[in-house]
Amino acid sequence: MIFMKWNSKITKVEPNHLVTCGYRQEDLIGNVPFSSVVYLLLKGELPSKEHGRMIDAILTACVDHGVTPPSAMASRVVASGGVPLPSAVAAGILAIGDAHGGAIEKGAKLLQDSVTRMKKENKTVEEMASLIVKEAKEQKKRILGFGHRVHTSDPRTKRLFSLADELHISDNHVALSKAIEIELEKSVGKKLPINVDGAIAAIISDMGFDWRLGKGFFLIGRAAGLTAHVYEEQTREKPMRKMFTVECEYDGPEEKDI
Amino acid sequence: MIFMKWNSKITKVEPNHLVTCGYRQEDLIGNVPFSSVVYLLLKGELPSKEHGRMIDAILTACVDHGVTPPSAMASRVVASGGVPLPSAVAAGILAIGDAHGGAIEKGAKLLQDSVTRMKKENKTVEEMASLIVKEAKEQKKRILGFGHRVHTSDPRTKRLFSLADELHISDNHVALSKAIEIELEKSVGKKLPINVDGAIAAIISDMGFDWRLGKGFFLIGRAAGLTAHVYEEQTREKPMRKMFTVECEYDGPEEKDI
Amino acid sequence: MIFMKWNSKITKVEPNHLVTCGYRQEDLIGNVPFSSVVYLLLKGELPSKEHGRMIDAILTACVDHGVTPPSAMASRVVASGGVPLPSAVAAGILAIGDAHGGAIEKGAKLLQDSVTRMKKENKTVEEMASLIVKEAKEQKKRILGFGHRVHTSDPRTKRLFSLADELHISDNHVALSKAIEIELEKSVGKKLPINVDGAIAAIISDMGFDWRLGKGFFLIGRAAGLTAHVYEEQTREKPMRKMFTVECEYDGPEEKDI
Amino acid sequence: MIFMKWNSKITKVEPNHLVTCGYRQEDLIGNVPFSSVVYLLLKGELPSKEHGRMIDAILTACVDHGVTPPSAMASRVVASGGVPLPSAVAAGILAIGDAHGGAIEKGAKLLQDSVTRMKKENKTVEEMASLIVKEAKEQKKRILGFGHRVHTSDPRTKRLFSLADELHISDNHVALSKAIEIELEKSVGKKLPINVDGAIAAIISDMGFDWRLGKGFFLIGRAAGLTAHVYEEQTREKPMRKMFTVECEYDGPEEKDI
Repeated sequence: MIFMKWNSKITKVEPNHLVTCGYRQEDLIGNVPFSSVVYLLLKGELPSKEHGRMIDAILTACVDHGVTPPSAMASRVVASGGVPLPSAVAAGILAIGDAHGGAIEKGAKLLQDSVTRMKKENKTVEEMASLIVKEAKEQKKRILGFGHRVHTSDPRTKRLFSLADELHISDNHVALSKAIEIELEKSVGKKLPINVDGAIAAIISDMGFDWRLGKGFFLIGRAAGLTAHVYEEQTREKPMRKMFTVECEYDGPEEKDI
Repeated sequence: MIFMKWNSKITKVEPNHLVTCGYRQEDLIGNVPFSSVVYLLLKGELPSKEHGRMIDAILTACVDHGVTPPSAMASRVVASGGVPLPSAVAAGILAIGDAHGGAIEKGAKLLQDSVTRMKKENKTVEEMASLIVKEAKEQKKRILGFGHRVHTSDPRTKRLFSLADELHISDNHVALSKAIEIELEKSVGKKLPINVDGAIAAIISDMGFDWRLGKGFFLIGRAAGLTAHVYEEQTREKPMRKMFTVECEYDGPEEKDI
Repeated sequence: MIFMKWNSKITKVEPNHLVTCGYRQEDLIGNVPFSSVVYLLLKGELPSKEHGRMIDAILTACVDHGVTPPSAMASRVVASGGVPLPSAVAAGILAIGDAHGGAIEKGAKLLQDSVTRMKKENKTVEEMASLIVKEAKEQKKRILGFGHRVHTSDPRTKRLFSLADELHISDNHVALSKAIEIELEKSVGKKLPINVDGAIAAIISDMGFDWRLGKGFFLIGRAAGLTAHVYEEQTREKPMRKMFTVECEYDGPEEKDI
Repeated sequence: MIFMKWNSKITKVEPNHLVTCGYRQEDLIGNVPFSSVVYLLLKGELPSKEHGRMIDAILTACVDHGVTPPSAMASRVVASGGVPLPSAVAAGILAIGDAHGGAIEKGAKLLQDSVTRMKKENKTVEEMASLIVKEAKEQKKRILGFGHRVHTSDPRTKRLFSLADELHISDNHVALSKAIEIELEKSVGKKLPINVDGAIAAIISDMGFDWRLGKGFFLIGRAAGLTAHVYEEQTREKPMRKMFTVECEYDGPEEKDI
């Protein structure tokens, strides 16, 4: 096979010489925090001190949520089949989809599109939030990033928002997201607090990241937690341990002869 | 189904309350570097300042090596099929195996077993290294973590070792690994320098990590680079782009009728 | 954990008793062709003789297309990292996406939606085809399932269509798909022949399958070819063999100090 | 990049011409059963009528075992995250490991090695079986392919063995496997019946397949069942449905301040 010519902005590889987004790897290693190197890889430049601290906080906010999310459960179950650690971690990453972590991507898209429209149509944040909630109601669409199956006041969300304020990162996207929360409560009649996905969606948008990277931040952070789950399963439990006993009702066609 | 009772040392999840290895997540977020949280997840305790800086350096040393390693190529190729970002990243992680990143795991196992034996048999590091090389030769086994297909003097290796010295982390495992390099050169007749996998194997061993986590460190770091590759493929290239043209010779059975 | 009650129409599992979609597994094994069991699993009933032969043909038409498609390349590359066979096959399956095999799903959706509309609006197949091509042109959308990067007259397509005719399966969806081919040629000015994905999309639609299963047929057939590729890579080649040499231009930020 | 020259015995791809292991794909499609094409891909030649029926039976015996095996559970859980069908199926395939389906591979290896040794050492099947059980006991190793967590007399095993007899496929490997069952009962004091993995291991060995393909047969058959599970999850359940409620005890470090 003959490869077509490729181009890449990520890493230049030459014998004894590795340059990632402009920086020699030996200069990055041990001098620039790993989380800032993540930022470098995804944005093509090193973060300011504030952005560096914010991306670090975001990655930490994604690390783990116990054994029940689809990603952790998938990693545990696959590990139980007796496979190498990376295969089991990969299974968990596969579970990061539109319904699990996906609100970062979709939420960020909505916020980014809406801020663009807000500026174009010369609207205030409150007007825009009201419009978003109204349109979602009309189209019977859920606005992603609000409400959580476990937490009513997620400590991660509060911490991320207060840090974004403290670091002067909070801007239109964070403001819009908070305004949507208020409008949603008016519209739905009950509080649907911004969840951790929604908070990250708003903050990465104010940091200038493309919404297409939404699941990427989640994945990079969660890879650490999934690795811990797989390691725990592999070292603390037996392969094919009895993880659950069945209460699954078969309601397919009745038993019959061929 | 009824789940058996599970136990986990990773995260306690209660409404509005998330405790990871003893620490509230809101306390970790933005206060403890992400790489130290990785350490916490894999070791159950926060690192000392020195260990924290070392683990950060190790993760950065794993982030990326351009488009050619199996992991990056797999992520690129899978992204090209038109799938969500996490699926393509997961494909790359699947490529982390015994031959790609695996020298960390196997190398660390060899070093850890050998240091145990060395102490038991009251041998010096040099004697142990000589024995390892001799036994590998007799059993016609390769000692993993030495030699690299591209680099003769990998800048990542040098940087990691000098940092491990500076942070007073280097101990028996690092010493043994360097002694093996010397013995290997005597035995093989050419320099087979410790590669980046070998350096990480030695350092995580001196940090007290279980060799079973070897591929885990690589995976957590590389997840960042793979995310960058998938994002670049998705935003810069067309799906199913012509990545290569074929020069594959079919040498199976000759064409025939059924 | 306590599982919620689950329901499933697939398999009833009791000690020494396995019933799949109504049939005891021991009755299916060796009595009903495997491809008909696939049909049973996806449709909940055994196929007629004609449908049984058609589904068998469809699975065979999906088995393999050499080393270049993203799925085969991903499996090969991942195998090269030194991982177990299923992990490498899974990597290939991950590559089955909107751009690779995805035309079955999207094509079947278009055909199924269009046949419904055709009946409702009392149109002929030709009128409907003309409308579809006109609307696609206006919306600048590609109609999936037409054209192929290698084949101008794909032998699989011809065989599948002639079999569908012979077995009296061809109906509105096949007719519409052929009518679109004619309209496309008029509109684009060159022949864009129905490809193998497009043919399968039309035929499974005339067989009454849900378009959501489109990638499923492809995947089940291709799993066989991918297994062969991984086995060949593992037994014929060395791990981390030099699969390609680089001609990748780094066009990221220029090298600089931190 | 420039690809090295590749060789492959699987498929020759030329414009409008696809030859798989010597046969034009249009000749295979609809004329040779899909399961025989699987055989062709894995062995390089079409099966005899007997081998064709046997491989078909083996694939059917692997299709599904309800929702509880790690593979089905992983596919279900990952589907629940809101991802495309192939990603969820791939997660299930990842769970096929040494502890789940792996007894086919390991069992076949043991049988193949033992039959070779049996011939070399001029032993009877009974003597060899006795030796295997004795050595396993001494080395405290489990002999894989015997015993099942649900079934004491698996209907699939019985059906596969009776078919292998009927088709005159049963030979030394099947005989040895049955002899081990008898020896195991004597040694352990209770019946550990050959399970479905063990039966397949013996039969594919008598069919002349490499033990390295063990997980491959399982995977190809199970891909069908996993596709059905993912489709059922996607069409019958909501994303992120409450699959289970937690009873997971956190027994990590006590909550503390940083």
